[in-house]
Amino acid sequence: MSHPEPAGVTVLGLGAMGSALAATLLDAGHDTTVWNRTPERAAALSTRGATAAPTIGAAVTAQPLVVAVLFDHASVHETLDPVIEQMRGSALVNLTTTTPNEARELATWAAGHGVRYLDGAIMATPPMIGGPGAAILYSGLREVFDDARPVLDRWADSTYDGADSGLASLFDLAMLSGMYSMFAGFLHGAAMAGSAGMSATEFAGRATPFLSAMTDSFAHFASVIDGGDYTVPGQQSLDFSDLSHIVRASEEQGVQPVPIAAVQELIGKQIAAGHGAEGFARIYESLRADSTEDAR
Amino acid sequence: MSHPEPAGVTVLGLGAMGSALAATLLDAGHDTTVWNRTPERAAALSTRGATAAPTIGAAVTAQPLVVAVLFDHASVHETLDPVIEQMRGSALVNLTTTTPNEARELATWAAGHGVRYLDGAIMATPPMIGGPGAAILYSGLREVFDDARPVLDRWADSTYDGADSGLASLFDLAMLSGMYSMFAGFLHGAAMAGSAGMSATEFAGRATPFLSAMTDSFAHFASVIDGGDYTVPGQQSLDFSDLSHIVRASEEQGVQPVPIAAVQELIGKQIAAGHGAEGFARIYESLRADSTEDAR
Repeated sequence: MSHPEPAGVTVLGLGAMGSALAATLLDAGHDTTVWNRTPERAAALSTRGATAAPTIGAAVTAQPLVVAVLFDHASVHETLDPVIEQMRGSALVNLTTTTPNEARELATWAAGHGVRYLDGAIMATPPMIGGPGAAILYSGLREVFDDARPVLDRWADSTYDGADSGLASLFDLAMLSGMYSMFAGFLHGAAMAGSAGMSATEFAGRATPFLSAMTDSFAHFASVIDGGDYTVPGQQSLDFSDLSHIVRASEEQGVQPVPIAAVQELIGKQIAAGHGAEGFARIYESLRADSTEDAR
Repeated sequence: MSHPEPAGVTVLGLGAMGSALAATLLDAGHDTTVWNRTPERAAALSTRGATAAPTIGAAVTAQPLVVAVLFDHASVHETLDPVIEQMRGSALVNLTTTTPNEARELATWAAGHGVRYLDGAIMATPPMIGGPGAAILYSGLREVFDDARPVLDRWADSTYDGADSGLASLFDLAMLSGMYSMFAGFLHGAAMAGSAGMSATEFAGRATPFLSAMTDSFAHFASVIDGGDYTVPGQQSLDFSDLSHIVRASEEQGVQPVPIAAVQELIGKQIAAGHGAEGFARIYESLRADSTEDAR
């Protein structure tokens, strides 16, 4: 067996996530260069063996693989525009949170300067990095993913989603959309139960196993959507799913119905368009790209 | 051991749920009287041993326990107002879906006619009745719950939530609010992924374990809410939870952002009110009863 020297890596951006990524590399023996806009953040990592680059130019030329974990899309340009020509031939793995289109713009910009670009989306909190359950999605240049794999796999389960640099962000945001909608629904439910004096903790004890079990419904919704026929048997109809009574009950209890009212808006539109006897999954038609104005 | 004769029960309303409830009682040997506005529905149950009552008056006087599984609150009055005086002394278990206030109104109305009232909320689909995983919440007169327990337990796990007849409906709607918000979030995520060509089934394969695992967050949100201090350490801040980029990405992909935009509306309000550094659970303050106008 060969035991190649762990690859050298530069990490730009030392917020909680960037620091966790750098620390994991240091623990695994990687030659790690770090840089942060405010240099104080690099001190803690220096004591663990990192090299703190004095300038951004020094940082991006210190190692052949540069990982950016910055604040947003604009900060990637602000940080790297002045030094991008010095990065020609390097690989840039951008883990900064962006929209899919922003990731695509960065891929085009990088390619224009001879920088090989891979976008990544982190599905983990900083304490999860390097441990079980962390996942990072990647899209962009496959060769960068393959070459950097020994580094990427230090952090999380690594998945390559395709050559379109926007895909990792898109699939990440798609799953986060489900998560935050669920969180908001839970908090609305807790407010409903709370209006009758139930503690949020007691409500969580009831809602956690229930909502966890209800995720089993996704596969059935998906099969209906992929089949393209919202009239197949075995579905709960939109008429039966009408949530007007939940919106009304929420208002009667003095609880703002914002999350559930948004769902009812989608249900109501499909019922008004004459689809009340079809399945609940049909509200997908009000959401999806390229849907007709009628369906919305 | 004593083996009392299974109690006699009348079931009013033979939609999918009422029929499932009646069939489960017949299978268990209960003397079961059935009634439906359109009498055809009773035929299938008659062949299984039910007695089809010729009139609503005959139905409600045939057995000491009357179970209503009707369309909505108004249909309970339409069906039972003409015969309520004949029910004096009977127990009425109302499993019709209502708001908490509608359940409270029915309890008062029933008591005014000497009818002992128990409200119930079914957390199951008709095929689940009598099998594992089905739950029914009850609230109202405790004595009715206790007396009817051998009947109620045929159908599902039975929980008594308190003397306020509105509680069963309230806790049911609170959990359904979480469920439907999660469903809408899943469908929005599927539309996002679908805009890049991913099938809903592939997205469900990713989203199901992820969202199921994320239900573990509820207990932490709940402890923050019950503690009343949204500044305790260990939380993801509202600033970090700002979902503007998901809303923007959705729009860029041509996907309607309705569910996630509703969540962002709540987050944005709390950030605008100066609470950006506090935890995500703080959006509870925008939802809950008795919150100040400022918090909303």
